[in-house]
Order: sequence, then structure tokens, then C-alpha cells
Amino acid sequence: MTPSAATPAYRRLSVEERRSQLLDAALSLFAHRAPEDVSLDDVAEAAGVSRPLVYRYFPGGKQQLYEAALRSAAEELQHCFDEPREGPLLPRLARALDRYLAFVDEHDTGFSALLQGGSVVETSRTTAIVDGVRRAAAEHIFRHLGVSAAEPRLRMTVRMWITSVEAASLMWLDEDKQPPVQELRDWLVEQFVAALTVTAGRDPQTAAVVGGLAGEG
Amino acid sequence: MTPSAATPAYRRLSVEERRSQLLDAALSLFAHRAPEDVSLDDVAEAAGVSRPLVYRYFPGGKQQLYEAALRSAAEELQHCFDEPREGPLLPRLARALDRYLAFVDEHDTGFSALLQGGSVVETSRTTAIVDGVRRAAAEHIFRHLGVSAAEPRLRMTVRMWITSVEAASLMWLDEDKQPPVQELRDWLVEQFVAALTVTAGRDPQTAAVVGGLAGEG
Repeated sequence: MTPSAATPAYRRLSVEERRSQLLDAALSLFAHRAPEDVSLDDVAEAAGVSRPLVYRYFPGGKQQLYEAALRSAAEELQHCFDEPREGPLLPRLARALDRYLAFVDEHDTGFSALLQGGSVVETSRTTAIVDGVRRAAAEHIFRHLGVSAAEPRLRMTVRMWITSVEAASLMWLDEDKQPPVQELRDWLVEQFVAALTVTAGRDPQTAAVVGGLAGEG
Repeated sequence: MTPSAATPAYRRLSVEERRSQLLDAALSLFAHRAPEDVSLDDVAEAAGVSRPLVYRYFPGGKQQLYEAALRSAAEELQHCFDEPREGPLLPRLARALDRYLAFVDEHDTGFSALLQGGSVVETSRTTAIVDGVRRAAAEHIFRHLGVSAAEPRLRMTVRMWITSVEAASLMWLDEDKQPPVQELRDWLVEQFVAALTVTAGRDPQTAAVVGGLAGEG
């Protein structure tokens, strides 16, 4: 492409469109490489713009771009949890897990780098974004379970399961995405039911939830 | 204490003793405060020495001291997993959990700060230390289960449980150490058995392990 051809295209995007184009380019790079292996030049090249233009939109450089990309990925991930509250509960959970695992599959390297910690771009802000997703996941689950105020034992059980889903996702990526994703999903659903069932023996609120699940079968 | 009284005591310690005294002081501070709330002056004061002396032993300053304290805590934590391989399995697991939860109780704030991420002193080295403890915990469990080469499904199940024990520990600290520690421990043992039982339905190696546990009951 000659400069004269590039320039008009360059101007056609609004500020918002340009910003979102740069973010998309950054996200697709951060998804498949560790943050330390992505440079601003890479982002500029992937978006087909100059490095100074990237800096104009993200004056904080790579850290700012990473956090913005992470925020946009977190939003996308939270959409995975959107599931109508109708029909039996476990198939709802299975569908949300399918979307979540597809997200993990699509953002493999970035997902591992983010959650495995010790990354060069990790800050209290990136941690807060990840924690926000975990909290949102727990809230979705409580809503689907019909629980408006989860007591400590149920809350712990659900958050332990969410953490163990993360751990399973990381190991799944490490194991070249084995077992097949549908098996992983079914197994995670079974682990959820088993964890709730154990807690039900100690906690009436959880026992009521498990009773509801059994009534569906 | 007058300087003349302090000086001889000051000289009586060998290099190793002094280093270990500074580390102990640092560890007890890092155990109960977030790393950003501990200064080298605090460490010097707690150890009853001057700030330059702390720097002589730890020229890398707070980061080096934090990593050394973390390494020493990680060693202490790994001793929690030392449990003779005799007698029924679940009581062994319960005893190891008792020691682990006592460690969590004793290092509460530091434990949370370390595992919740986004700390100012978190680096790829601190992450590697924590991962080393997780790996050691998994290896101990496999040895106790009599498994010399864990296959992916069993490995995932054990590591998911270890991760969920960490999550439960953090929430337990957040909930002012409720439920009582013995209840938490029994509940975690039950979760372990339930998780293995679910996996046993999909994996012969895990089914053999669960069969062994049942034979003990």
C-alpha cells in the first residue's frame, strides 16, 4: 500500500473506532503471546498504523494498552456468563462453561500469562480486573441458584469451585487442550454438584440448593 | 539499653546467626502486614539493629529481604506436608491440613497479600517460590496415594483441590477465621474425597485410588 492510499483510510476512522481497532490488535497479540513478548511496534504493525499513533491513543504505552485490552477481555468473558434463568440449572451451567472454555481456548497464552502471575505487567489494577470477573461469576451462579444472600459456607463452596475451574483451565492449556473440551465441561459440572453435596451435609442453605438440583433430575 | 551494652551482643552473633535473626524479624513483620506496609526501618527496629546493618546483609533491600523471608516461609510450609506414610490415608491428610491451616493462621496477612497477587514485591521469582510449594504439596499427595506417575485426570483433580484449599484459606482469613479450623479441615478432606470420586467415574487410575480409600473405611 502506498502512503497516498493509506492516508485517507487512516483518516476515515473516528477516535473511538481507532481506539477500538488498536485495542483489538493488542488483544489478539496479548491473547497468544506473553506480555513481555509483545512490543508497541508489534501492536502498531498489527493495526497497520505508526508507533507514534499508538502512543497518541495510549500515552502510558504497553502497560496502559495491556490494561485496556484486559478490561475489554474481561467484559467479553463476563458475557459468557449471560444465560437466561430458565430451564434446568445444570444445562445452564454447562452452556456458560462452554462459552467460558471457548474463551480460554481463544486466548490461551494470554490467559495463562495473566493467571499464572509474576508477569511484568501485573499490577494491583490487573489483579482487581481479574477479581472482578471472579466475583461476577459467583454472583451469576448465586442468581441462577435462586440465592439472594449466600452465607459463608455456600459462598466458599462456589468460589472454591470457580478457582478450581481456573486451575483446570490452566492445566488443560498445559496439556495441549486435553481432555476434549466437552469432557472437561461435563467433569467440571459434576465437580460442582459434588462440592455442593459435601457442603450440604454441613449447611442448610446449601442443602436446600442441592435439593432443588435433585428435584430437576 | 545503652550503646555500650548493645555493642557486645551485636558482635556475639555469627554472620549466619545475624542473617537468620534478620530473616526472622522480617518474616514476622511480613506475616502480619502487607509488604508495602513494611519498611527496612521496621525490620531494623524489630531486629534491634541499624538500617545500614540490614543493608549489609540484604543489599537488594526490601525486595531481597522479602524473597528471602518468603523462601524461608516456603520451607516451613513444606514441613507441614511431612507425614509418615503409615495408617489410614484420610487421617494423614487431616493432620497435614491441621499443620497447613496453623501456618495460614500464623501468617495471615502475609499469606493473603502473597496469594491475592498484585503486590508491589511480586515478581516471577516470588511466583516460582509459591508454585514450588504447590508442586511439593501435589507430590506429597501422590506419594501418600501410592501413585508414582499420576495421569492427567488424577493430576488435575489433586491440583484443583490444592488450589481450592488455597482459596478456602483466603476466604477463611477474610471471614475472621470462621468456620472453626477443625470444621474447615474436615470439610476440606470431604471435598478431596468427593472430587476424587467424581474423577473416578472417568479415570481408572483415580478409581483405583478411591477403591483404596474405601477399603480403609
